Amino acid sequence: MSGIPGFEPVELERSYLLLNHGPTVLVGSAHAGRRNVMAAAWAMPLDFSPPKMLVVIDKSVYSRELIEASGEFTLCVPAREQAEAVVRVGTDSGRGCDKFEQAGLRALPASKIGAPLVADSLACLECKVVPEPHNQKRYDLFIGEVVAAWADPRVFSGNRWHFTDDARRSIHYVAGGTFFATGQAFSVPTGK
Amino acid sequence: MSGIPGFEPVELERSYLLLNHGPTVLVGSAHAGRRNVMAAAWAMPLDFSPPKMLVVIDKSVYSRELIEASGEFTLCVPAREQAEAVVRVGTDSGRGCDKFEQAGLRALPASKIGAPLVADSLACLECKVVPEPHNQKRYDLFIGEVVAAWADPRVFSGNRWHFTDDARRSIHYVAGGTFFATGQAFSVPTGK
Repeated sequence: MSGIPGFEPVELERSYLLLNHGPTVLVGSAHAGRRNVMAAAWAMPLDFSPPKMLVVIDKSVYSRELIEASGEFTLCVPAREQAEAVVRVGTDSGRGCDKFEQAGLRALPASKIGAPLVADSLACLECKVVPEPHNQKRYDLFIGEVVAAWADPRVFSGNRWHFTDDARRSIHYVAGGTFFATGQAFSVPTGK
Repeated sequence: MSGIPGFEPVELERSYLLLNHGPTVLVGSAHAGRRNVMAAAWAMPLDFSPPKMLVVIDKSVYSRELIEASGEFTLCVPAREQAEAVVRVGTDSGRGCDKFEQAGLRALPASKIGAPLVADSLACLECKVVPEPHNQKRYDLFIGEVVAAWADPRVFSGNRWHFTDDARRSIHYVAGGTFFATGQAFSVPTGK
């Protein structure tokens, strides 16, 4: 697996941990020389092994065209310091412009697919669409099998998140430009 | 709509806000005089109107039988002070016991369906299964249409969350008994 600047690889079987706590994600897509990035609050793991993720991509958005044409997408976990860009790419359309540039985000080449990763995000998943035409058409619901996973080792290593800098916490979208930051970690007995 | 002690109704069209930030949920189910409750980190909104939710329910768990037999389930958002019970109902099986009692949780009757709500949770959604046999069988994925929604007005009112007491924040499961609490709220300009 080739390296990605600023990221270390995450074992595929543990890649669900990157989305298990429900952060808002950025969805990267590309096809035929065009690329795009959008925000999605509705993304989550679907399976551990092989790891699969769900994401809802509305029919009206440009990313949908690129994802359906290429059969690929990335899911990147943005940091709190990227929240303005998240709102921006969740509001504007990518038709006729480059949303990465417009929002001040930088694209990085992925390792196994053509869709771009988001530089300076906390973690990224490279996904290939598992075709389910009924779900896509009826529910705008896409399933992606994770083929590579990456995380910023300053916030995720040894298969666990360890946030220290508030600017580099993951975020959870609510509505109207409002988010929650991922808060305090705590543990309870598991009885095992 | 009949009242639920400790809760106020949430408009159906805004009920997605209860799960938009990705909290871990408790899934309530009942059929033929049996009831159960389990934990699910993999739940999220699927649509605004009519509001629909997704939840992953493994084939092996007892709740699955009750949900498939009844066509109903509830999704309740537990508070941090309920985290030990969340881990407990996420670990033990409900076959041959009452998991509410075992975990020290109290069930409340729902308003429109037979599945129980979880008392002292932050919010609850009453859902009717939208039958999608392929998704259920192949991906353990259930779609529920929200038919009633409730929230504790001390933490959610006027269509927004307002956490103040740390014991009454929502929680986000990671793994191995570890959670993140929902953290600080913040807003960024939306450009509108």
